[in-house]
Amino acid sequence: MAKDNLTAVLYGIENLKLEQRPIPHIADTEVLLAIDCVGICGSDVHYLVNGRIGDFILNKPMVIGHEASGVIVKVGANVKHLKVGDRCAIEPGVPCRICSYCKSGKYNICPEMKFCATPPYDGNLTHFYKHPGDFCYKLPDHISMEEGALLEPLSVAVHACRRGKVGLGSSVLIMGAGPIGLATMLVAKSMGATKVMITDLLQQRLDVATELGADFTLLMTRENKAELVAEKVEILMGSKPDISIDCCGAETTTRLSIFATRSGGCCVIVGMNAAETKIPLTNALIREVDIRGIFRYCNDYPAALALVSSGKINVKRLITHHFDITETVKAFETARHGLENAIKVMIHVQPIDSNNKC
Amino acid sequence: MAKDNLTAVLYGIENLKLEQRPIPHIADTEVLLAIDCVGICGSDVHYLVNGRIGDFILNKPMVIGHEASGVIVKVGANVKHLKVGDRCAIEPGVPCRICSYCKSGKYNICPEMKFCATPPYDGNLTHFYKHPGDFCYKLPDHISMEEGALLEPLSVAVHACRRGKVGLGSSVLIMGAGPIGLATMLVAKSMGATKVMITDLLQQRLDVATELGADFTLLMTRENKAELVAEKVEILMGSKPDISIDCCGAETTTRLSIFATRSGGCCVIVGMNAAETKIPLTNALIREVDIRGIFRYCNDYPAALALVSSGKINVKRLITHHFDITETVKAFETARHGLENAIKVMIHVQPIDSNNKC
Amino acid sequence: MAKDNLTAVLYGIENLKLEQRPIPHIADTEVLLAIDCVGICGSDVHYLVNGRIGDFILNKPMVIGHEASGVIVKVGANVKHLKVGDRCAIEPGVPCRICSYCKSGKYNICPEMKFCATPPYDGNLTHFYKHPGDFCYKLPDHISMEEGALLEPLSVAVHACRRGKVGLGSSVLIMGAGPIGLATMLVAKSMGATKVMITDLLQQRLDVATELGADFTLLMTRENKAELVAEKVEILMGSKPDISIDCCGAETTTRLSIFATRSGGCCVIVGMNAAETKIPLTNALIREVDIRGIFRYCNDYPAALALVSSGKINVKRLITHHFDITETVKAFETARHGLENAIKVMIHVQPIDSNNKC
Amino acid sequence: MAKDNLTAVLYGIENLKLEQRPIPHIADTEVLLAIDCVGICGSDVHYLVNGRIGDFILNKPMVIGHEASGVIVKVGANVKHLKVGDRCAIEPGVPCRICSYCKSGKYNICPEMKFCATPPYDGNLTHFYKHPGDFCYKLPDHISMEEGALLEPLSVAVHACRRGKVGLGSSVLIMGAGPIGLATMLVAKSMGATKVMITDLLQQRLDVATELGADFTLLMTRENKAELVAEKVEILMGSKPDISIDCCGAETTTRLSIFATRSGGCCVIVGMNAAETKIPLTNALIREVDIRGIFRYCNDYPAALALVSSGKINVKRLITHHFDITETVKAFETARHGLENAIKVMIHVQPIDSNNKC
Repeated sequence: MAKDNLTAVLYGIENLKLEQRPIPHIADTEVLLAIDCVGICGSDVHYLVNGRIGDFILNKPMVIGHEASGVIVKVGANVKHLKVGDRCAIEPGVPCRICSYCKSGKYNICPEMKFCATPPYDGNLTHFYKHPGDFCYKLPDHISMEEGALLEPLSVAVHACRRGKVGLGSSVLIMGAGPIGLATMLVAKSMGATKVMITDLLQQRLDVATELGADFTLLMTRENKAELVAEKVEILMGSKPDISIDCCGAETTTRLSIFATRSGGCCVIVGMNAAETKIPLTNALIREVDIRGIFRYCNDYPAALALVSSGKINVKRLITHHFDITETVKAFETARHGLENAIKVMIHVQPIDSNNKC
Repeated sequence: MAKDNLTAVLYGIENLKLEQRPIPHIADTEVLLAIDCVGICGSDVHYLVNGRIGDFILNKPMVIGHEASGVIVKVGANVKHLKVGDRCAIEPGVPCRICSYCKSGKYNICPEMKFCATPPYDGNLTHFYKHPGDFCYKLPDHISMEEGALLEPLSVAVHACRRGKVGLGSSVLIMGAGPIGLATMLVAKSMGATKVMITDLLQQRLDVATELGADFTLLMTRENKAELVAEKVEILMGSKPDISIDCCGAETTTRLSIFATRSGGCCVIVGMNAAETKIPLTNALIREVDIRGIFRYCNDYPAALALVSSGKINVKRLITHHFDITETVKAFETARHGLENAIKVMIHVQPIDSNNKC
Repeated sequence: MAKDNLTAVLYGIENLKLEQRPIPHIADTEVLLAIDCVGICGSDVHYLVNGRIGDFILNKPMVIGHEASGVIVKVGANVKHLKVGDRCAIEPGVPCRICSYCKSGKYNICPEMKFCATPPYDGNLTHFYKHPGDFCYKLPDHISMEEGALLEPLSVAVHACRRGKVGLGSSVLIMGAGPIGLATMLVAKSMGATKVMITDLLQQRLDVATELGADFTLLMTRENKAELVAEKVEILMGSKPDISIDCCGAETTTRLSIFATRSGGCCVIVGMNAAETKIPLTNALIREVDIRGIFRYCNDYPAALALVSSGKINVKRLITHHFDITETVKAFETARHGLENAIKVMIHVQPIDSNNKC
Repeated sequence: MAKDNLTAVLYGIENLKLEQRPIPHIADTEVLLAIDCVGICGSDVHYLVNGRIGDFILNKPMVIGHEASGVIVKVGANVKHLKVGDRCAIEPGVPCRICSYCKSGKYNICPEMKFCATPPYDGNLTHFYKHPGDFCYKLPDHISMEEGALLEPLSVAVHACRRGKVGLGSSVLIMGAGPIGLATMLVAKSMGATKVMITDLLQQRLDVATELGADFTLLMTRENKAELVAEKVEILMGSKPDISIDCCGAETTTRLSIFATRSGGCCVIVGMNAAETKIPLTNALIREVDIRGIFRYCNDYPAALALVSSGKINVKRLITHHFDITETVKAFETARHGLENAIKVMIHVQPIDSNNKC
């Protein structure tokens, strides 16, 4: 095993550095992974730019990155389902396993969750990373390491669609055609949605959405009034959508999601709003339109993997840019400003395709 | 059958009159009822004072009243489960029966709903009233006509608790100790809630709550900051409640319901907010606290009746005042201003106890 | 409008006749349809051969047929969503609309259900047939009348998959590759199932299943022991399926469904067993494998239509034979004995393609 | 701490001995408890008499007992919510915490479950017993150690009622008035059931049921035909019950549960049937009556504790006999043969009331 353990560490606002870190030792329940690639998420950029997200504050240097795949290089004695050489997707949050949330199947809201690159916990944009074996999912040979890394945002989409109870014949309105919005569209269709409209401020993102199967697209402007857009949505889709999934989290899109959804339907808010939001709450209440947030994912990685490995959905199109770990700062620039129509930016810790088998 | 059909008609804002109306003719699926008593609801008062609720606007004279019980005096040919003399509670909304909401068990959000005393449909504060037989529920002998009328607000409480998924061992925070809040407390406990806290601005209402079984009460002031009250609730109850049910619908109480509820829990908003509300939405979203409204009730009358007739709950304490139909204006004054600690004001269309059997 | 109303009437066991019947008059809530085509269902054949299904006994002549589509020729005054010339699929059961089942969204188990060609109610293998407007679903232009008729068995499949809670990443075992089994496979995949195995006694049916997208097929013999087949299923699929859907209803397949399903999963039994069945009940109970039957469908036609009209599934391959209504007896022979690898046999009341628009 | 660790060990069929065992050492996540009392369960008796239950076979000596409460005498470093002296109820099964069942909130069907007194795992009828801290529930002062031990069967009842979706206004038929049947009745009523009928072969058990609040009782004989009893149940209860809960697990009671339940309802089978059962499956299927088993409990201890500590239910009446651990053989005789109308037999490892605070 190489001695090199180059690691991307966020030291503070606008202060991201590469440095060597010691290679971790594993416990009996853990595996050591040679990370292959790591996608950049909006939250990674947010920490770089703001040094915090809500109450999670960067108080000390933190390894960045949480959308990762890697290859097993060492296996703890109690890990039975993995062996050295297995290519894995890494579910980046590890809950306490003993609280009532963990026991009742909602480990994503475990108050003791340790989540990669959420302060104070280190992420995995690094050469060698250790993780509990049961949160590593072996990839079949025909799935690439890039797809493995994409299971993370895909799991967010799965969780959002499940929370929204997308089902057979659902009509779904999705706000935002970034990586999460597009992944949500793919998942919604694979769960039986028969009509999906997606909105964005950028036509080129809508073009990608159409390419990936959107039934309707709607170009928004920041001036749009939610009530009026809701009427337009109803006319275009033929009826109010059953479910709206807001992958932007702006006040406008959240307002739109309420006005647009049919009575008895559901608004899922995935994107992060400001702390306080002014919404047409009564409109939702008296029409029994539920408002549900999502926090990461929970028991969703297996379905995300099954979707990709069965060929039901193809997520490769979401990746627009590739960088080596040594180019991490440039990769973050690209993601941050959406340069060159960037959707998902992938950082390679190992040479591209060195672990891909197809 | 008497010829008298004295009826309370709302002609406009602050313009409520008693007048004679023709006795209605029934169709084969309907029954004619001699109304016994009618409770006054906040919405009745609202129409009297404002002439509208949201988009429902009083454009022509409307019979007021929708919390009613009565005795069957005529039975349509197709009505099989009722006979002349049966004492009934009347579920006041009649849906279209053919739309997708009606067919899928959510008739309360049927867009063609005809609901008593919601413009333009007449209510039932009148001597003789016709209604579809299947929305009349026969009362057992040991249940009073007053209790029959109370099934209406009780059904709201049932719907709220069901929407909030109150269950075995639930801890529940209820905002507002008026008729709906108190009924909600009774229902929550009968569904298995083991800890219920109720809040109000008036100590005398909290005293009634305690008398009816509240585990905790909390006196609020209009100045209370929601975050701080939420902390107090957590300390007093021992942990954040699983479910908050806001029976006030003020911005403060809705905000409190969000801050107070445990992660993964649920806020049910029963009271009517202003059209726009500023809420700490992100706080709810990232903790997966769902926000759900309720609109009236749906398939809840049978459970409400079962609760009362089985003796699981006693709703009689909610009635504080009795008036004859000829005193309707005075009855509304009492309800409107909460005179003499009024909780539920009952108007008797027939002499008290003339139809009670116990 | 033509005067001809040729109708297929079942007079008793092995006694199916064509005869003229009067053209029905419609009520305000009804439409009159010129039936286009009618699929033959196993239950139709069962009445022909046995004169009864369970407690439903043919005591007087009954028009046969219930998988129908037609064109509107007359519209009742209260029917707003249809007009003359509209091509429709017909949901063949009409519930009472007033019982607790109807009101709570489970109209399929309404005890007063009037269902086409279930004694004593007439079916719709006839030229002119009247039906309540709200149980007629307008077909878009690109959907054929044959597909419209197929929405009936497809709705059974939708109901089965919904009852089994098929979802994202589900693995599903389906017993029986007849019309219902194949439709169930298509629906399961469109709801997110990522692994589907289907079994049958006939290789040619499994070949069709493979053609339509089955991930695994398994040829059964009548001698197969359920425990052993269950082990084979687990090996082939890689793990026990989450859900088993028994579209045969033989004791063997029901037993297999129990043994094969993973703990915490669900067996849906669609096919009709004998009145008494010997099953390994304890095996299911201690593994919390639920056993659920289905009775027809309920609120499933809209999703079935959305699946077909969105192009998510293609059901045309299920139709193997076409007959004119004058050849009804021969059509039943073909369906009854599965002649020429018959899957679904379609009877045309009007010339083929006379109402198809694409 | 005493050196004495008297322990009840089952050596084989009809071979139960008391012997000294070493006092266990605890890990950081564990606590050591001085056991106070242990109830005898039917399964304990079953191992004594048969040496096995299904595939669980007694191949080596095993400490018996799993319905226990105790006092904390040592606390592992990582256990934060307990301290020495805390009086606790012990949930006796410890799952693997890493499989998909554990992660999705169904740890009761974890294939790696270690459950007290289910071979090969030792139980807790012993003086000193170690257990993971998170499966120990602190009892409030006003709850007795006997009630703490009863949380085990009470949790079975909670799980059964939850699986059956007992709710507001439910009517419930319970077969068997032993400890589980009676506890199920108490739980069903506390969840909102408004009509409960309970059946048994022994009138004295039905008398206890009546004392505890049964609305209806029905004395059965072994000769009863299920169909006929079902009719009687319908007549007595006024309608078919929504839910049947079979706490016997005889073929007759399981058959009764199917025939008796209303369409769309649910049969929960708690008692253990023979491996193969002949049931009227079609009757259940076509009426969409679901059949669900239960396996122990899962996330049910907190609700069971809340029920008892809130005073909603009183389980003390279930305990009919008390024995000292030195009288274990006699205690088992009493439980085995139901001597002196025994319902629940309690074995005291410490002197009665030595740890009770009220």
